[in-house]
Amino acid sequence: MQIASPANPRIKAIRALRQRHERERSGRFFIEGIRLVAEALQMEAPVETLVVAPSLLRSDFARSLVAQAQAAAIPVLEVSEAVFSSLSQKEGPQGLAAVVRQRWQRLEELRPAPGDYWVALHAAQDPGNIGTILRTADAAGARGVMLLDHCADPHDPNAVRASMGALFAQGIIRASLAEFWRWKEQTGCTVVGTSGAAATDYRSLRYPLPLVLLMGSEREGLSPSEQASCDVMVSIAMTGRSDSLNLAVATALVLYEVFYQCRSSHNFS
Amino acid sequence: MQIASPANPRIKAIRALRQRHERERSGRFFIEGIRLVAEALQMEAPVETLVVAPSLLRSDFARSLVAQAQAAAIPVLEVSEAVFSSLSQKEGPQGLAAVVRQRWQRLEELRPAPGDYWVALHAAQDPGNIGTILRTADAAGARGVMLLDHCADPHDPNAVRASMGALFAQGIIRASLAEFWRWKEQTGCTVVGTSGAAATDYRSLRYPLPLVLLMGSEREGLSPSEQASCDVMVSIAMTGRSDSLNLAVATALVLYEVFYQCRSSHNFS
Repeated sequence: MQIASPANPRIKAIRALRQRHERERSGRFFIEGIRLVAEALQMEAPVETLVVAPSLLRSDFARSLVAQAQAAAIPVLEVSEAVFSSLSQKEGPQGLAAVVRQRWQRLEELRPAPGDYWVALHAAQDPGNIGTILRTADAAGARGVMLLDHCADPHDPNAVRASMGALFAQGIIRASLAEFWRWKEQTGCTVVGTSGAAATDYRSLRYPLPLVLLMGSEREGLSPSEQASCDVMVSIAMTGRSDSLNLAVATALVLYEVFYQCRSSHNFS
Repeated sequence: MQIASPANPRIKAIRALRQRHERERSGRFFIEGIRLVAEALQMEAPVETLVVAPSLLRSDFARSLVAQAQAAAIPVLEVSEAVFSSLSQKEGPQGLAAVVRQRWQRLEELRPAPGDYWVALHAAQDPGNIGTILRTADAAGARGVMLLDHCADPHDPNAVRASMGALFAQGIIRASLAEFWRWKEQTGCTVVGTSGAAATDYRSLRYPLPLVLLMGSEREGLSPSEQASCDVMVSIAMTGRSDSLNLAVATALVLYEVFYQCRSSHNFS
């Protein structure tokens, strides 16, 4: 049975996942596109429903994903082209989407292993930045991203898109800053912060693991008291008229320094 | 005389600058917000008209910018709050905006000085990436950004916003890829490309200046023939499931390597 009405209650419930409050209430989110759905299935993300518009499915690969989901007993919702377009926020919808359950790790259960490193973002406001940071964290061998205090939603469509599937591979944690500092006390994990005013250049520090790289918000950076709570503060050199970098860029620079140090210490051991 | 009608022909002409074809036809673009207008004035960008909604101007700094523009004989267009809102694409419009003339450098006139480095983007499609790359290039001491073949517009509102004013400080050039390679032949400038498959790690190369860092598009990267035309190809290590990084992130990593090498060679000389 194909759903042909955009006003169908199940379709309306899926469309409502565009709203953050509905994503949080339901603990679900919506992903679309062949690549993202393939990543979700391959990473065994908790896909709850596959949404398929058969008339839009053009590739054998997309059809094989539908068969794979069916073999895994994932319910498949068939919809008309018009219904699919009413759900899609992409140009050129590919006829394949999914509703996925959110999967959060709990900070209080996290005990970092000796070689682990995480990114923590305080009050990051831009979903695209959060998605890009997830993508970079995955590429640079981090374990995941902690979202402290009120951050944008990593399940926002723009964050999901920018993460290019890394959302399914990286751990995601949300906590208050107070909980984060308590957790740091308990675990003894090193916290490195960044600030333009720090005396230590980010490329001259030997990063001790396990480690959390704490980044301030796009507008404010880290407050003086947050900086004082970090074990080490590092700065990224800037010339020209700039007094700051894009949050995802600054995070990537420090994270790649940590990653390359780990790689070279493995090479020497 | 305050303009109170959003249908006023001058207001309609400014609103039309949201469209790329209108920006290109007129050679102008629209910027808004106190910070961006301040940067434009300070960098002596060719500001053609200041657009001011006096009732929205809340800060002395914003009022001082209006006075500064008047002293520099820049025409000031006074508009009502409603008219300003009809032009604004920001939440919480600040009552200050400007129409600025585009300023392109010409590739055929560019003769790089010994220590210069540039970024060149081939067919980059995301305005936010272009703006972020301008911001990073400015922070990392590059001279500017070359946009090769059909790229997104650096004067797109999302690009301007992401550049955080670096658009006024960096050189911008557009050219075809064919023109770019001819220019490289003529000037002898080194071109470094990036590819996941390159044997040389981006952190092990000693970058020779002057230099252009050539980055492929978000989707395709550099084609085999583009790679073959580069003097050196470098790769960025990745682990996890990732086979690529965000374009602005990848550009930042290599550019910062160039920047830090320059800084340390200055320190030793």
